[in-house]
Amino acid sequence: MRDVAEVRRLRIETPSWAYANSGTRFKVFAQAGVPRDPWEKIADAAVVHRLTGAAPTVALHIPWDRVDDYAALAKHAADLGLGIGAINANVFQDDDYKLGSVTNPDPAVRRKAVAHLLECVDIMDATGSKDLKLWFADGTNYPGQDSIRARQDRLGEALHQVYDRLGPDQRMLLEYKLFEPAFYTTDVPDWGTSYAHCLELGEKAAVCIDTGHHAPGTNIEFIVAFLLRAGRLGAFDFNSRFYADDDLMVGAADPFQLFRILHEIVSADALADAGIAFMLDQCHNIEAKIPAIIRSVLNVQEAAAKALLVDADALAAAQSAGDVLAANAVLMDAYSTDVRPRLRELRAEQGLDPDPVAAYHASGHQQEIEAARVGGVQAGWGA
Amino acid sequence: MRDVAEVRRLRIETPSWAYANSGTRFKVFAQAGVPRDPWEKIADAAVVHRLTGAAPTVALHIPWDRVDDYAALAKHAADLGLGIGAINANVFQDDDYKLGSVTNPDPAVRRKAVAHLLECVDIMDATGSKDLKLWFADGTNYPGQDSIRARQDRLGEALHQVYDRLGPDQRMLLEYKLFEPAFYTTDVPDWGTSYAHCLELGEKAAVCIDTGHHAPGTNIEFIVAFLLRAGRLGAFDFNSRFYADDDLMVGAADPFQLFRILHEIVSADALADAGIAFMLDQCHNIEAKIPAIIRSVLNVQEAAAKALLVDADALAAAQSAGDVLAANAVLMDAYSTDVRPRLRELRAEQGLDPDPVAAYHASGHQQEIEAARVGGVQAGWGA
Amino acid sequence: MRDVAEVRRLRIETPSWAYANSGTRFKVFAQAGVPRDPWEKIADAAVVHRLTGAAPTVALHIPWDRVDDYAALAKHAADLGLGIGAINANVFQDDDYKLGSVTNPDPAVRRKAVAHLLECVDIMDATGSKDLKLWFADGTNYPGQDSIRARQDRLGEALHQVYDRLGPDQRMLLEYKLFEPAFYTTDVPDWGTSYAHCLELGEKAAVCIDTGHHAPGTNIEFIVAFLLRAGRLGAFDFNSRFYADDDLMVGAADPFQLFRILHEIVSADALADAGIAFMLDQCHNIEAKIPAIIRSVLNVQEAAAKALLVDADALAAAQSAGDVLAANAVLMDAYSTDVRPRLRELRAEQGLDPDPVAAYHASGHQQEIEAARVGGVQAGWGA
Amino acid sequence: MRDVAEVRRLRIETPSWAYANSGTRFKVFAQAGVPRDPWEKIADAAVVHRLTGAAPTVALHIPWDRVDDYAALAKHAADLGLGIGAINANVFQDDDYKLGSVTNPDPAVRRKAVAHLLECVDIMDATGSKDLKLWFADGTNYPGQDSIRARQDRLGEALHQVYDRLGPDQRMLLEYKLFEPAFYTTDVPDWGTSYAHCLELGEKAAVCIDTGHHAPGTNIEFIVAFLLRAGRLGAFDFNSRFYADDDLMVGAADPFQLFRILHEIVSADALADAGIAFMLDQCHNIEAKIPAIIRSVLNVQEAAAKALLVDADALAAAQSAGDVLAANAVLMDAYSTDVRPRLRELRAEQGLDPDPVAAYHASGHQQEIEAARVGGVQAGWGA
Repeated sequence: MRDVAEVRRLRIETPSWAYANSGTRFKVFAQAGVPRDPWEKIADAAVVHRLTGAAPTVALHIPWDRVDDYAALAKHAADLGLGIGAINANVFQDDDYKLGSVTNPDPAVRRKAVAHLLECVDIMDATGSKDLKLWFADGTNYPGQDSIRARQDRLGEALHQVYDRLGPDQRMLLEYKLFEPAFYTTDVPDWGTSYAHCLELGEKAAVCIDTGHHAPGTNIEFIVAFLLRAGRLGAFDFNSRFYADDDLMVGAADPFQLFRILHEIVSADALADAGIAFMLDQCHNIEAKIPAIIRSVLNVQEAAAKALLVDADALAAAQSAGDVLAANAVLMDAYSTDVRPRLRELRAEQGLDPDPVAAYHASGHQQEIEAARVGGVQAGWGA
Repeated sequence: MRDVAEVRRLRIETPSWAYANSGTRFKVFAQAGVPRDPWEKIADAAVVHRLTGAAPTVALHIPWDRVDDYAALAKHAADLGLGIGAINANVFQDDDYKLGSVTNPDPAVRRKAVAHLLECVDIMDATGSKDLKLWFADGTNYPGQDSIRARQDRLGEALHQVYDRLGPDQRMLLEYKLFEPAFYTTDVPDWGTSYAHCLELGEKAAVCIDTGHHAPGTNIEFIVAFLLRAGRLGAFDFNSRFYADDDLMVGAADPFQLFRILHEIVSADALADAGIAFMLDQCHNIEAKIPAIIRSVLNVQEAAAKALLVDADALAAAQSAGDVLAANAVLMDAYSTDVRPRLRELRAEQGLDPDPVAAYHASGHQQEIEAARVGGVQAGWGA
Repeated sequence: MRDVAEVRRLRIETPSWAYANSGTRFKVFAQAGVPRDPWEKIADAAVVHRLTGAAPTVALHIPWDRVDDYAALAKHAADLGLGIGAINANVFQDDDYKLGSVTNPDPAVRRKAVAHLLECVDIMDATGSKDLKLWFADGTNYPGQDSIRARQDRLGEALHQVYDRLGPDQRMLLEYKLFEPAFYTTDVPDWGTSYAHCLELGEKAAVCIDTGHHAPGTNIEFIVAFLLRAGRLGAFDFNSRFYADDDLMVGAADPFQLFRILHEIVSADALADAGIAFMLDQCHNIEAKIPAIIRSVLNVQEAAAKALLVDADALAAAQSAGDVLAANAVLMDAYSTDVRPRLRELRAEQGLDPDPVAAYHASGHQQEIEAARVGGVQAGWGA
Repeated sequence: MRDVAEVRRLRIETPSWAYANSGTRFKVFAQAGVPRDPWEKIADAAVVHRLTGAAPTVALHIPWDRVDDYAALAKHAADLGLGIGAINANVFQDDDYKLGSVTNPDPAVRRKAVAHLLECVDIMDATGSKDLKLWFADGTNYPGQDSIRARQDRLGEALHQVYDRLGPDQRMLLEYKLFEPAFYTTDVPDWGTSYAHCLELGEKAAVCIDTGHHAPGTNIEFIVAFLLRAGRLGAFDFNSRFYADDDLMVGAADPFQLFRILHEIVSADALADAGIAFMLDQCHNIEAKIPAIIRSVLNVQEAAAKALLVDADALAAAQSAGDVLAANAVLMDAYSTDVRPRLRELRAEQGLDPDPVAAYHASGHQQEIEAARVGGVQAGWGA
């Protein structure tokens, strides 16, 4: 059987924007101490890594994290013990993008969007990032608004241009999402669309699964398993939801689903060194941000630890015997186990506080940033 | 059989906020010519009524439409041929409301929220509005965050306080919504909750059905029929959606559903003078706003006209004979009919342009407002 | 804090039909040893109770469990240590019911259906059952097929006739279901409809929540909390699902949801002696039936035990302080705890085998019934 | 602009099993006059073609339509003016298939299943059928029950064996379905899975879209457009639904969706001679079967006629101008048009009765079959 200590090999990437303000279309509630710039976001990410030992990289979002000197930003991160993770392109917040970015009917807008994506590869070069993460808000709101097929042609063309620019060690991660902000069609609505484009592009393109981006009832672990088998699972954007793309803390809405996803990962021996980026992508609209991110890291660890506890031999035996209840019981035994004591031990062995959330509250960091980060403009989705 | 001309009795209320900017959490795309204040919103609403002859009232949203002198605002509307429709309370955009308004665990916040609702009744008095429309964003994002039952107690208490303040000819319309912005529980998530509170409150409380606020698969016309039978259908917030609360133009996503809803209305003889307020509640994020609202009014008219075409005797005969296909065919015959020629005739008889959208484009209004409404701050959800 | 040992007060009712064959519209897979008649079903139910100590009643389904002498059947149950639970009426399997039972447009069919419901009350009298459980397959498949409002009138009338026949200690439990077998409208599609009819009927009518009968995204624990507050939660039909009414083992698809439901029950002090019947309603299409039912009983116990572990004071404190993460953490701490060791202890204290599933396999019962129950017609949904 | 008369080129295939009894897991309601064998099913299909002129082929389902002499069956069809359409394999109704067919953990069951699929190709040879349609009920009901990845391996292997057996003019159509009868995972749950396997197999494999097999909110016309662009749209199984796989008459639940699907077909010039098989796959559980099938053919014709009415030049102009409302209006103008008069004219020109449903009722066929088809065993899903 596997050793739960393997969970220490799991690296979770936190997103710079989760440290900033976020909200719904109805209201963004500001929080005290929120970063005003990318440097402060990275400082917060470093706190999460220092306390968990499991979050060694931070993802950037351009233009939200635009700075004059990206090498300096990467140096700042490195000084704090962090690497730069994926560069997330943003082609949905300019007025030009009202009807789409790379799929816009206007070729000038498409050129502008592609130029931004290429700029993101430049930033990858400057920061040492290996992954370009692409999510397109592109789509239509009304039947007839645009040609679905023509938009696919434009999408394919833009992706090729960007793909060709990638360096030998750089990847393109193509995310999909059912809806929002587009409300009739979305140009990359499901894993099939993302996968098909990745196949056309080549080996450096892989699918990114955001756990909140599916139609109701979609079996996410099936997609995980399928893409693992096909060698095209590039990354996760972890979060959770009860309804649509709610962006709650991962594991908060359906911890059993998270466990089933990690079970697929573990059973394919892909928890580490398999080229899968495990990233968070969440919105802490009403809860304290840094503790929520720490909690999210712990939730992924707990799910992974339980997945490591699955007795693979017993499972395989029950499966091949066609014993439905026995096979299910093997899985449930692992899930029902309380792995928190063992994880606390593992942290202590690593020289970490066994309870990172409590350690955060005891650290004084929150009081510090609330006192220090006064004035200026708090970071949010718009900047 | 009924006369399609009855459609002229159908009055559709347009919402002041639909003339202003709106968007998603990702981006609000500003449009040229958008109103800067309630006076300009009402001016736009008057254009819609002038061209359609069917939209004689405009709903206000407080505080978005806050002015110093509400009587003057009502006078302004009247001068333009409009009445003031429902007053829509807003208790979701202050920082205090992060964890709820009337259901907030903090009694001070609850008092503040109730005070706002009472202020809205004052505005009803001042403007002659007969309907207080209540939609609560209240809810929780995480399991355990608050007590579901305690929140119902607080909700009931607040509703009672407001209900008691209503004048003899004033009503309370209680809207429900499955989710957003709350992502775990919503305090009034479905028609059953709204209906139960209305029963407790008394005769002046009725349910408002927003067509976009249901779980996937919900049969809206069933709810319409049930509430009509129970005498508690107070209003509609019309819009349409493919996914969640997309707020697209009514009839754009599922015109057959809109027809089925109107069929319930017509078959209960409730198209006019039955105390049902037919309101639009939409977000024209990417399309031109005034033409979209005109189009929405026409869509409701077309659905109503088709519903009036249903051969009620033939339908009843087929239903009581248990002839499934014949009964369905009666309904589909009406739905398949192109009612637009007849509606154009009816408009011409009323002295209206038969094609209100074309008439709008020919009117020069759009060019006028784009030229005039320069400077200042465009109205939107935040103001 | 509560004592987990309270879980021993929780009584779970198993359904006679779950011991029989079931399947989908595509295929019913027969299993060896399945009962051929109600007497054998009750024998199996007794095994479940003997091993778990938690399933002291068995629900019957008429006509599937029709016998000549109901008193003798009750005696048979009593001899095996069981009581008779709810009598479940079945008005959906005669050819007459093609277009509905109590809501059928044909009054003769309605009379026939009501007569069956009254017969069920007779059976309650004969067996000592206190609960009449009503689920209506009634509805329509096509728009226009029948009048939604007229069907509500017919429903109300039938319910009144049956309600008036109830004895002083008998209840009516009215179940709802979104869809299937009706595919356009269902006459009792949601809790609101059931609740409204119960209010009209009187104190002896209460709502039955089948956990698999909701639209996607419905928050079931909200309904639980609402009905508890209103004093109208009469029963559960427990099962689980990933999609529609899949009727999987309770707790198999979303154990966290089951915990949240039990948390509402426990926090309202309604785990026992509160008039709520906790019933299973499942289909073990491909898994062994008796072990699956035992497992289901254990799953409900585990969820209840975790709910009993919730630190109510800490939860209330965090809630009233508006500390979202702390409140959620209190809940999650209880959920993350492995309660199986404590439940095994409690069983041992009761003189039960700590592992009822293993005890079943060791008991020889399965081999016995497979050897004995040869010939005859296996029981299923059709008989 | 296109000519609505093009609709005469649209050929719709009817399924033999839709003429037989069907139902839900709760009840199959038998209908008078239903066929007792494949010969009678084909006779009914011939009536539909004779009256509509649009349904020249009939799909078979093996083993439901198993006969001793398939050449004779094809001759029987030809004598009645029909061709044999797709051969639909059935590997879900033997007890062996309880845990799957081609993905079963037991290799003996997999061999049996593949043998059946190969037999279906033999039947294609014997009947002149060009299409093998594969839908697999395979999947699991419980997490852990089987390995998702191993099942994909088995699936791929089986498909390859069958694909290699296809003749040069024969195709494999691979259908997908979200759920039912499997309730946790389905081995071909979505178009992406089907498409990926088709890519691996080769040019003779294409995707079959059953309109009722998607998660809620899925945009079906997007999938249509994507597969058309990729050259992998092989067939439709038309039907409609409000909830899950309801199998109602196509166009009954959402006629606007059907129109949008046909719009994608027409705009890709794929209404005829493009290798797309337009098939019905429906269950007429409570309505008269032959008239329901005729009605379904008419519904597809009406949607196609409306799609042909779309002013493609105006649409393209509005789309490239980014005029959302104008583009949508072009589509809605076509949809709002009543095409029934023109379709009646076209039928008259073809020597058909303009109203095929009325013609059926006048034909005496129903009375004839009800009188003649007495005794024997009515056909249904089980035979």
